[in-house]
Amino acid sequence: MRGVAVVLIVALDPPAGTNVGEWIASRYEALKDIVQGFKLGLPAIVKHGIDSISKCFSDYEGLLIADLKLADIGDVMAEVVKWLKNLGINGVIAHGFVGYRGGVEVLARTCREAGVKLILVVSMSHEGSAEFIDKHLDGLIELAKAVDSWGVVAPATRPNVIRYVRARLGSDMVILSPGVGAQGAEPGDALCAGADYEIVGRAITRAENLREAALNVIRQQKEKVSKCRG
Amino acid sequence: MRGVAVVLIVALDPPAGTNVGEWIASRYEALKDIVQGFKLGLPAIVKHGIDSISKCFSDYEGLLIADLKLADIGDVMAEVVKWLKNLGINGVIAHGFVGYRGGVEVLARTCREAGVKLILVVSMSHEGSAEFIDKHLDGLIELAKAVDSWGVVAPATRPNVIRYVRARLGSDMVILSPGVGAQGAEPGDALCAGADYEIVGRAITRAENLREAALNVIRQQKEKVSKCRG
Repeated sequence: MRGVAVVLIVALDPPAGTNVGEWIASRYEALKDIVQGFKLGLPAIVKHGIDSISKCFSDYEGLLIADLKLADIGDVMAEVVKWLKNLGINGVIAHGFVGYRGGVEVLARTCREAGVKLILVVSMSHEGSAEFIDKHLDGLIELAKAVDSWGVVAPATRPNVIRYVRARLGSDMVILSPGVGAQGAEPGDALCAGADYEIVGRAITRAENLREAALNVIRQQKEKVSKCRG
Repeated sequence: MRGVAVVLIVALDPPAGTNVGEWIASRYEALKDIVQGFKLGLPAIVKHGIDSISKCFSDYEGLLIADLKLADIGDVMAEVVKWLKNLGINGVIAHGFVGYRGGVEVLARTCREAGVKLILVVSMSHEGSAEFIDKHLDGLIELAKAVDSWGVVAPATRPNVIRYVRARLGSDMVILSPGVGAQGAEPGDALCAGADYEIVGRAITRAENLREAALNVIRQQKEKVSKCRG
């Protein structure tokens, strides 16, 4: 997985006041052959339901991640995953913070059975992440390893955290890194720090020319990666 | 708020395979005049969207809580709250563990502006709660006080935790307590330990006679509370 030079996931977060179905479908159509996946954000899911917003992806074979930041008891998270699976979603983001017993334990088992990739948050991009979550970085990484999570999320805005997570994880598990573009990190920064996937939202999805914006990000990723891995 | 003898919120979690709209509407109609509120669970929201499942509550004046266990960065949580408000939801459950800065800080401000009651999780009912969350019980309670949260969630299955939270919180903030009924706690247990609202799901929503089941819970609550508050 880490051998792939650059991997780009587009975060789809329709702004308020838009027709969400159309907004998502137009971005999907413009980008599906040049990016490796899409991430659906919580606000649109909460408002419209996966049922309605995932329709346009019905023949998609890339990564399709529901960024729910699940943080409930295991049975509730498992119920959500079963529904995601039925609707064609193949990845879900959840918090390790709820703990293993009766929490991530149940979620991980359900994801495995359903063929949905589990992605656990080990650190977040906002300052508040330092108050509780970051104090447990080691524990959250250990938990991700213990349940054989497909991947973890670590913020592109903090490359030192990515480097630390990569060192602790070894090379078997993927690191997905949001925060590229509008949040401040440059394309390629997280990849050079050890991430496998960079997640870019507004810098692509709100550009006038969607395809050009995505190709530009990919070009910047390649340039940076060829230097740091070169 | 704490002077009210017994307060019952019904958790609406439609089982898989049902017509969610009908399932929710029938429970709402049967119970709306005898309970103080309803809590909508994450799986149904994720599948169908608040937009479609909140329709039947359009003239409701009680508590209507979206149990999203929000745990994202502040801007994302704020966006969710704005949509909840537009759809008639007046309470939302979120995690304090994402921290204050850029997290609960933004969420709390948005809730205040939108007139949505913020309810922060300080402990959960599953065993895994002890692994990370419970270690920060004091910090999470302090955070709830700092942002002047309307309430906190603490599990009915662990009355000692409720007693501790009540002692730390003082009497100004409400405690909502899930886990009554199918999860093991008896009606009234959490109220006697210091909670203000008990949340009951399956023991009511899957009973043959919904109204009788709810009245039975209320009777049990009153009996227990009249003894413990003597």
